[in-house]
Amino acid sequence: MSEHLRRTPTGAAVLQAHKTSAITEAVLDELAEHGYGRLSMEAVAKRAGVGKSALYRRWPAKQDMVVAALSEFSVPLAEVPDTGSLRGDVRATLGALHGWLTHPRFARILPDLAAEAARNPALARAVEQAVGEPRRARGAETLARAVGRGELPEDLDVDLALDLVAGPLYWRLSVRRVEAGEDHLDRLTEVLLRALGARATS
Amino acid sequence: MSEHLRRTPTGAAVLQAHKTSAITEAVLDELAEHGYGRLSMEAVAKRAGVGKSALYRRWPAKQDMVVAALSEFSVPLAEVPDTGSLRGDVRATLGALHGWLTHPRFARILPDLAAEAARNPALARAVEQAVGEPRRARGAETLARAVGRGELPEDLDVDLALDLVAGPLYWRLSVRRVEAGEDHLDRLTEVLLRALGARATS
Repeated sequence: MSEHLRRTPTGAAVLQAHKTSAITEAVLDELAEHGYGRLSMEAVAKRAGVGKSALYRRWPAKQDMVVAALSEFSVPLAEVPDTGSLRGDVRATLGALHGWLTHPRFARILPDLAAEAARNPALARAVEQAVGEPRRARGAETLARAVGRGELPEDLDVDLALDLVAGPLYWRLSVRRVEAGEDHLDRLTEVLLRALGARATS
Repeated sequence: MSEHLRRTPTGAAVLQAHKTSAITEAVLDELAEHGYGRLSMEAVAKRAGVGKSALYRRWPAKQDMVVAALSEFSVPLAEVPDTGSLRGDVRATLGALHGWLTHPRFARILPDLAAEAARNPALARAVEQAVGEPRRARGAETLARAVGRGELPEDLDVDLALDLVAGPLYWRLSVRRVEAGEDHLDRLTEVLLRALGARATS
Protein backbone atom coordinates (compact mmCIF):
# COMPACT_ATOMS: atom_id res chain seq x y z
CA MET A 1 0.00 0.00 0.00
CA SER A 2 2.82 2.47 0.86
CA GLU A 3 4.52 1.22 -2.35
CA HIS A 4 1.35 2.12 -4.23
CA LEU A 5 1.14 5.50 -2.48
CA ARG A 6 4.65 6.43 -3.60
CA ARG A 7 4.04 5.39 -7.19
CA THR A 8 0.69 7.07 -7.76
CA PRO A 9 0.15 9.92 -5.32
CA THR A 10 -2.66 11.40 -7.37
CA GLY A 11 -4.58 8.14 -7.51
CA ALA A 12 -4.05 7.66 -3.78
CA ALA A 13 -5.19 11.20 -3.03
CA VAL A 14 -8.34 10.59 -5.06
CA LEU A 15 -8.90 7.38 -3.12
CA GLN A 16 -8.50 9.21 0.20
CA ALA A 17 -10.89 11.97 -0.87
CA HIS A 18 -13.40 9.33 -1.95
CA LYS A 19 -13.09 7.64 1.43
CA THR A 20 -13.53 10.93 3.32
CA SER A 21 -16.64 11.65 1.29
CA ALA A 22 -18.06 8.19 2.10
CA ILE A 23 -17.40 8.84 5.79
CA THR A 24 -19.13 12.24 5.64
CA GLU A 25 -22.19 10.61 4.07
CA ALA A 26 -22.17 7.89 6.73
CA VAL A 27 -21.93 10.47 9.55
CA LEU A 28 -24.89 12.43 8.18
CA ASP A 29 -26.97 9.26 7.72
CA GLU A 30 -26.21 8.08 11.25
CA LEU A 31 -26.99 11.54 12.68
CA ALA A 32 -30.33 11.64 10.86
CA GLU A 33 -31.29 8.14 12.00
CA HIS A 34 -29.98 8.01 15.55
CA GLY A 35 -29.08 11.56 16.62
CA TYR A 36 -25.80 12.83 18.04
CA GLY A 37 -26.14 11.16 21.44
CA ARG A 38 -26.40 7.63 20.06
CA LEU A 39 -23.97 8.04 17.15
CA SER A 40 -20.84 5.89 17.49
CA MET A 41 -17.55 5.83 15.59
CA GLU A 42 -18.10 2.08 15.14
CA ALA A 43 -21.45 2.52 13.38
CA VAL A 44 -20.03 5.22 11.09
CA ALA A 45 -17.02 3.05 10.16
CA LYS A 46 -19.29 0.10 9.38
CA ARG A 47 -21.66 2.19 7.30
CA ALA A 48 -18.83 3.85 5.36
CA GLY A 49 -17.12 0.50 4.80
CA VAL A 50 -13.84 1.59 6.39
CA GLY A 51 -11.89 0.55 9.46
CA LYS A 52 -12.18 2.56 12.71
CA SER A 53 -8.50 3.52 12.26
CA ALA A 54 -9.48 5.43 9.11
CA LEU A 55 -11.71 7.60 11.31
CA TYR A 56 -9.22 8.11 14.12
CA ARG A 57 -6.51 9.07 11.59
CA ARG A 58 -8.74 11.94 10.50
CA TRP A 59 -10.40 13.03 13.75
CA PRO A 60 -9.43 12.52 17.40
CA ALA A 61 -13.02 12.09 18.60
CA LYS A 62 -16.66 11.81 17.63
CA GLN A 63 -17.33 15.53 18.07
CA ASP A 64 -14.60 16.51 15.60
CA MET A 65 -15.87 14.00 13.06
CA VAL A 66 -19.47 15.17 13.34
CA VAL A 67 -18.58 18.86 13.19
CA ALA A 68 -16.41 18.28 10.07
CA ALA A 69 -19.26 16.45 8.31
CA LEU A 70 -21.78 19.15 9.22
CA SER A 71 -19.44 21.87 8.00
CA GLU A 72 -18.76 20.09 4.71
CA PHE A 73 -22.48 19.73 4.08
CA SER A 74 -23.70 23.10 5.36
CA VAL A 75 -21.16 25.74 4.43
CA PRO A 76 -21.27 25.33 0.60
CA LEU A 77 -25.08 25.66 0.80
CA ALA A 78 -24.61 29.21 2.11
CA GLU A 79 -22.75 30.26 -1.07
CA VAL A 80 -25.10 32.57 -2.93
CA PRO A 81 -24.10 33.88 -6.37
CA ASP A 82 -24.10 37.61 -7.03
CA THR A 83 -27.41 38.21 -8.78
CA GLY A 84 -26.66 41.91 -9.28
CA SER A 85 -29.31 43.22 -6.87
CA LEU A 86 -30.11 42.97 -3.17
CA ARG A 87 -33.61 41.71 -3.99
CA GLY A 88 -32.16 38.91 -6.10
CA ASP A 89 -29.49 38.08 -3.51
CA VAL A 90 -31.97 37.98 -0.59
CA ARG A 91 -34.36 35.79 -2.59
CA ALA A 92 -31.50 33.44 -3.51
CA THR A 93 -30.38 33.35 0.14
CA LEU A 94 -33.89 32.40 1.28
CA GLY A 95 -34.05 29.71 -1.42
CA ALA A 96 -30.72 28.28 -0.27
CA LEU A 97 -31.78 28.46 3.39
CA HIS A 98 -35.02 26.67 2.52
CA GLY A 99 -33.05 23.94 0.74
CA TRP A 100 -30.77 23.52 3.77
CA LEU A 101 -33.55 23.41 6.37
CA THR A 102 -35.86 21.09 4.39
CA HIS A 103 -33.15 18.74 3.08
CA PRO A 104 -34.69 15.33 3.99
CA ARG A 105 -31.68 14.26 6.01
CA PHE A 106 -30.71 17.60 7.46
CA ALA A 107 -34.25 18.51 8.56
CA ARG A 108 -33.93 15.66 11.07
CA ILE A 109 -30.35 16.47 12.04
CA LEU A 110 -30.67 20.15 12.89
CA PRO A 111 -33.32 20.13 15.66
CA ASP A 112 -31.52 17.21 17.35
CA LEU A 113 -28.24 19.08 17.11
CA ALA A 114 -29.74 22.25 18.60
CA ALA A 115 -31.04 20.18 21.53
CA GLU A 116 -27.66 18.50 22.02
CA ALA A 117 -25.87 21.87 21.82
CA ALA A 118 -28.14 23.23 24.57
CA ARG A 119 -26.73 20.51 26.89
CA ASN A 120 -23.16 20.45 25.54
CA PRO A 121 -21.40 23.84 25.40
CA ALA A 122 -18.22 22.43 23.78
CA LEU A 123 -20.26 20.99 20.90
CA ALA A 124 -22.20 24.25 20.60
CA ARG A 125 -18.96 26.24 20.26
CA ALA A 126 -17.47 23.81 17.73
CA VAL A 127 -20.61 23.91 15.55
CA GLU A 128 -20.73 27.69 15.78
CA GLN A 129 -17.09 27.91 14.63
CA ALA A 130 -17.28 25.37 11.80
CA VAL A 131 -20.83 25.93 10.59
CA GLY A 132 -22.41 29.10 11.98
CA GLU A 133 -19.52 31.54 11.52
CA PRO A 134 -18.55 30.53 7.95
CA ARG A 135 -22.21 30.59 6.91
CA ARG A 136 -22.66 34.03 8.46
CA ALA A 137 -19.45 35.26 6.78
CA ARG A 138 -20.99 34.37 3.41
CA GLY A 139 -24.22 36.12 4.36
CA ALA A 140 -22.23 39.19 5.42
CA GLU A 141 -20.49 39.24 2.01
CA THR A 142 -23.88 39.35 0.31
CA LEU A 143 -24.91 42.30 2.47
CA ALA A 144 -21.56 44.04 1.88
CA ARG A 145 -22.15 43.82 -1.89
CA ALA A 146 -25.46 45.63 -1.41
CA VAL A 147 -23.80 48.33 0.71
CA GLY A 148 -21.24 48.69 -2.09
CA ARG A 149 -24.04 49.13 -4.65
CA GLY A 150 -25.63 51.78 -2.45
CA GLU A 151 -28.69 49.60 -1.78
CA LEU A 152 -28.10 49.35 1.98
CA PRO A 153 -26.90 51.99 4.47
CA GLU A 154 -23.17 52.02 5.30
CA ASP A 155 -23.95 51.68 9.02
CA LEU A 156 -26.06 48.53 8.55
CA ASP A 157 -26.24 46.37 11.71
CA VAL A 158 -24.97 43.21 9.97
CA ASP A 159 -25.38 40.93 13.00
CA LEU A 160 -29.02 41.87 13.44
CA ALA A 161 -29.61 41.78 9.66
CA LEU A 162 -28.38 38.18 9.45
CA ASP A 163 -30.67 37.10 12.32
CA LEU A 164 -33.51 38.78 10.48
CA VAL A 165 -32.88 36.90 7.24
CA ALA A 166 -32.44 33.45 8.80
CA GLY A 167 -34.77 33.59 11.81
CA PRO A 168 -38.29 33.81 10.40
CA LEU A 169 -37.74 30.91 7.97
CA TYR A 170 -36.09 28.73 10.64
CA TRP A 171 -38.94 29.45 13.04
CA ARG A 172 -41.52 28.53 10.39
CA LEU A 173 -39.87 25.44 8.89
CA SER A 174 -37.98 23.91 11.80
CA VAL A 175 -39.93 24.95 14.90
CA ARG A 176 -43.52 25.44 13.72
CA ARG A 177 -43.00 22.84 10.97
CA VAL A 178 -45.17 24.76 8.52
CA GLU A 179 -44.33 24.77 4.81
CA ALA A 180 -43.03 27.83 2.94
CA GLY A 181 -43.67 27.82 -0.82
CA GLU A 182 -42.09 29.99 -3.51
CA ASP A 183 -44.79 32.60 -2.99
CA HIS A 184 -44.05 32.79 0.73
CA LEU A 185 -40.33 33.28 0.03
CA ASP A 186 -41.20 36.08 -2.45
CA ARG A 187 -43.30 37.88 0.18
CA LEU A 188 -40.68 37.36 2.89
CA THR A 189 -38.08 38.87 0.53
CA GLU A 190 -40.10 42.07 0.17
CA VAL A 191 -40.62 42.36 3.91
CA LEU A 192 -36.91 41.80 4.60
CA LEU A 193 -35.90 44.47 2.07
CA ARG A 194 -38.11 46.89 3.98
CA ALA A 195 -36.69 45.74 7.33
CA LEU A 196 -33.10 46.20 6.13
CA GLY A 197 -33.86 49.73 4.95
CA ALA A 198 -33.15 48.90 1.30
CA ARG A 199 -33.03 51.80 -1.15
CA ALA A 200 -33.89 51.36 -4.80
CA THR A 201 -30.88 52.08 -7.03
CA SER A 202 -31.37 53.55 -10.47
CA MET B 1 -62.02 11.72 52.24
CA SER B 2 -65.26 11.79 50.23
CA GLU B 3 -67.02 12.88 53.45
CA HIS B 4 -64.55 15.74 53.66
CA LEU B 5 -65.07 16.61 49.97
CA ARG B 6 -68.83 16.91 50.47
CA ARG B 7 -68.47 19.12 53.52
CA THR B 8 -65.89 21.60 52.15
CA PRO B 9 -65.97 21.65 48.36
CA THR B 10 -64.07 24.94 48.15
CA GLY B 11 -61.22 23.66 50.31
CA ALA B 12 -61.06 20.47 48.26
CA ALA B 13 -61.00 22.40 44.97
CA VAL B 14 -58.16 24.52 46.27
CA LEU B 15 -56.35 21.33 47.28
CA GLN B 16 -56.85 19.87 43.80
CA ALA B 17 -55.59 23.06 42.13
CA HIS B 18 -52.58 23.02 44.41
CA LYS B 19 -51.88 19.41 43.46
CA THR B 20 -52.22 20.16 39.73
CA SER B 21 -49.81 23.05 40.10
CA ALA B 22 -47.28 20.79 41.90
CA ILE B 23 -47.58 18.27 39.07
CA THR B 24 -47.04 20.96 36.42
CA GLU B 25 -43.88 22.08 38.22
CA ALA B 26 -42.67 18.49 38.46
CA VAL B 27 -43.31 17.89 34.74
CA LEU B 28 -41.32 21.00 33.77
CA ASP B 29 -38.44 20.06 36.11
CA GLU B 30 -38.30 16.52 34.75
CA LEU B 31 -38.44 17.81 31.15
CA ALA B 32 -35.58 20.23 31.79
CA GLU B 33 -33.44 17.58 33.47
CA HIS B 34 -34.13 14.49 31.41
CA GLY B 35 -35.91 15.56 28.21
CA TYR B 36 -39.21 14.28 26.81
CA GLY B 37 -37.87 10.89 25.73
CA ARG B 38 -36.75 9.83 29.21
CA LEU B 39 -39.55 11.48 31.18
CA SER B 40 -41.78 8.97 32.98
CA MET B 41 -45.12 9.31 34.77
CA GLU B 42 -43.50 7.53 37.74
CA ALA B 43 -40.75 10.14 38.10
CA VAL B 44 -43.25 13.00 37.84
CA ALA B 45 -45.52 11.44 40.48
CA LYS B 46 -42.59 10.92 42.84
CA ARG B 47 -41.30 14.47 42.34
CA ALA B 48 -44.74 16.02 42.82
CA GLY B 49 -45.38 13.88 45.91
CA VAL B 50 -48.59 12.35 44.51
CA GLY B 51 -49.67 8.87 43.50
CA LYS B 52 -49.56 7.79 39.85
CA SER B 53 -53.34 7.55 39.95
CA ALA B 54 -53.47 11.33 40.51
CA LEU B 55 -51.75 11.72 37.14
CA TYR B 56 -53.88 9.19 35.26
CA ARG B 57 -57.05 10.75 36.65
CA ARG B 58 -56.02 14.00 34.92
CA TRP B 59 -54.35 12.78 31.71
CA PRO B 60 -54.58 9.49 29.82
CA ALA B 61 -50.91 9.47 28.81
CA LYS B 62 -47.53 11.15 29.13
CA GLN B 63 -47.98 13.26 26.01
CA ASP B 64 -51.20 14.82 27.33
CA MET B 65 -49.61 15.56 30.69
CA VAL B 66 -46.54 17.19 29.12
CA VAL B 67 -48.54 19.26 26.64
CA ALA B 68 -50.83 20.51 29.43
CA ALA B 69 -47.83 21.59 31.54
CA LEU B 70 -46.19 23.33 28.59
CA SER B 71 -49.39 25.14 27.74
CA GLU B 72 -49.95 26.26 31.33
CA PHE B 73 -46.42 27.68 31.47
CA SER B 74 -46.14 29.15 27.97
CA VAL B 75 -49.49 30.64 27.02
CA PRO B 76 -49.79 33.22 29.85
CA LEU B 77 -46.30 34.47 28.93
CA ALA B 78 -47.64 35.51 25.52
CA GLU B 79 -50.17 37.89 27.13
CA VAL B 80 -48.93 41.39 26.34
CA PRO B 81 -50.77 44.38 27.80
CA ASP B 82 -52.02 47.14 25.50
CA THR B 83 -49.33 49.82 25.75
CA GLY B 84 -51.24 52.17 23.45
CA SER B 85 -48.81 52.03 20.53
CA LEU B 86 -47.47 49.39 18.15
CA ARG B 87 -43.91 50.31 19.10
CA GLY B 88 -44.67 49.72 22.78
CA ASP B 89 -46.58 46.51 22.04
CA VAL B 90 -43.82 45.05 19.83
CA ARG B 91 -41.17 45.94 22.41
CA ALA B 92 -43.25 44.32 25.17
CA THR B 93 -43.77 41.23 22.97
CA LEU B 94 -40.01 40.91 22.41
CA GLY B 95 -39.39 41.31 26.15
CA ALA B 96 -41.95 38.57 26.92
CA LEU B 97 -40.49 36.32 24.21
CA HIS B 98 -37.02 36.88 25.64
CA GLY B 99 -38.25 35.92 29.09
CA TRP B 100 -39.85 32.75 27.73
CA LEU B 101 -36.83 31.63 25.68
CA THR B 102 -34.24 32.40 28.37
CA HIS B 103 -36.22 31.11 31.35
CA PRO B 104 -33.60 28.86 33.04
CA ARG B 105 -35.79 25.79 32.91
CA PHE B 106 -37.56 26.43 29.62
CA ALA B 107 -34.36 27.28 27.72
CA ARG B 108 -33.40 23.63 28.18
CA ILE B 109 -36.89 22.28 27.46
CA LEU B 110 -37.62 23.99 24.15
CA PRO B 111 -34.72 22.74 21.95
CA ASP B 112 -35.28 19.20 23.23
CA LEU B 113 -38.98 19.49 22.49
CA ALA B 114 -38.35 20.76 18.95
CA ALA B 115 -36.06 17.77 18.35
CA GLU B 116 -38.65 15.36 19.73
CA ALA B 117 -41.40 16.97 17.64
CA ALA B 118 -39.30 16.46 14.50
CA ARG B 119 -39.47 12.70 15.17
CA ASN B 120 -42.98 12.56 16.61
CA PRO B 121 -45.71 14.18 14.47
CA ALA B 122 -48.48 13.52 17.03
CA LEU B 123 -46.54 15.40 19.71
CA ALA B 124 -45.76 18.19 17.24
CA ARG B 125 -49.47 18.63 16.47
CA ALA B 126 -50.47 18.56 20.13
CA VAL B 127 -47.87 21.19 21.07
CA GLU B 128 -48.89 23.34 18.12
CA GLN B 129 -52.55 23.19 19.25
CA ALA B 130 -51.97 23.78 22.97
CA VAL B 131 -48.98 26.14 22.85
CA GLY B 132 -48.27 27.51 19.35
CA GLU B 133 -51.81 28.40 18.30
CA PRO B 134 -52.92 30.13 21.54
CA ARG B 135 -49.65 32.07 21.66
CA ARG B 136 -50.07 33.14 18.05
CA ALA B 137 -53.69 34.12 18.71
CA ARG B 138 -52.45 36.52 21.39
CA GLY B 139 -49.82 37.90 18.99
CA ALA B 140 -52.49 38.35 16.34
CA GLU B 141 -54.63 40.34 18.82
CA THR B 142 -51.71 42.72 19.38
CA LEU B 143 -51.34 43.25 15.63
CA ALA B 144 -55.12 43.69 15.21
CA ARG B 145 -55.02 46.50 17.79
CA ALA B 146 -52.40 48.26 15.66
CA VAL B 147 -54.50 47.82 12.52
CA GLY B 148 -57.41 49.31 14.46
CA ARG B 149 -55.28 52.32 15.44
CA GLY B 150 -54.27 52.80 11.79
CA GLU B 151 -50.65 51.93 12.54
CA LEU B 152 -50.58 48.83 10.31
CA PRO B 153 -52.18 48.23 6.90
CA GLU B 154 -55.56 46.47 6.85
CA ASP B 155 -54.20 43.78 4.51
CA LEU B 156 -51.31 42.87 6.84
CA ASP B 157 -50.06 39.30 6.32
CA VAL B 158 -50.50 38.29 9.98
CA ASP B 159 -49.01 34.81 9.58
CA LEU B 160 -45.80 36.18 8.10
CA ALA B 161 -45.75 39.08 10.57
CA LEU B 162 -45.82 36.68 13.54
CA ASP B 163 -42.93 34.64 12.10
CA LEU B 164 -41.03 37.87 11.69
CA VAL B 165 -41.51 38.93 15.30
CA ALA B 166 -40.62 35.56 16.86
CA GLY B 167 -38.06 34.14 14.41
CA PRO B 168 -35.01 36.42 14.72
CA LEU B 169 -34.98 36.27 18.52
CA TYR B 170 -35.48 32.49 18.61
CA TRP B 171 -32.69 32.05 16.06
CA ARG B 172 -30.36 34.23 18.14
CA LEU B 173 -31.16 32.96 21.62
CA SER B 174 -32.06 29.31 21.09
CA VAL B 175 -30.11 28.26 17.99
CA ARG B 176 -27.03 30.53 17.90
CA ARG B 177 -27.11 30.81 21.72
CA VAL B 178 -26.01 34.46 21.63
CA GLU B 179 -27.35 36.93 24.19
CA ALA B 180 -29.76 39.73 23.39
CA GLY B 181 -29.71 42.71 25.78
CA GLU B 182 -32.24 45.50 26.20
CA ASP B 183 -30.43 47.53 23.54
CA HIS B 184 -30.66 44.67 21.04
CA LEU B 185 -34.41 44.35 21.69
CA ASP B 186 -34.80 48.12 21.14
CA ARG B 187 -33.03 47.93 17.78
CA LEU B 188 -34.94 44.82 16.74
CA THR B 189 -38.17 46.66 17.57
CA GLU B 190 -37.32 49.49 15.16
CA VAL B 191 -36.38 47.05 12.39
CA LEU B 192 -39.61 45.07 12.88
CA LEU B 193 -41.74 48.23 12.74
CA ARG B 194 -40.15 48.97 9.36
CA ALA B 195 -40.64 45.36 8.21
CA LEU B 196 -44.32 45.42 9.17
CA GLY B 197 -44.87 48.66 7.26
CA ALA B 198 -45.79 50.61 10.39
CA ARG B 199 -47.15 54.13 9.90
CA ALA B 200 -46.73 56.82 12.52
CA THR B 201 -50.09 57.97 13.89
CA SER B 202 -50.60 61.54 14.97
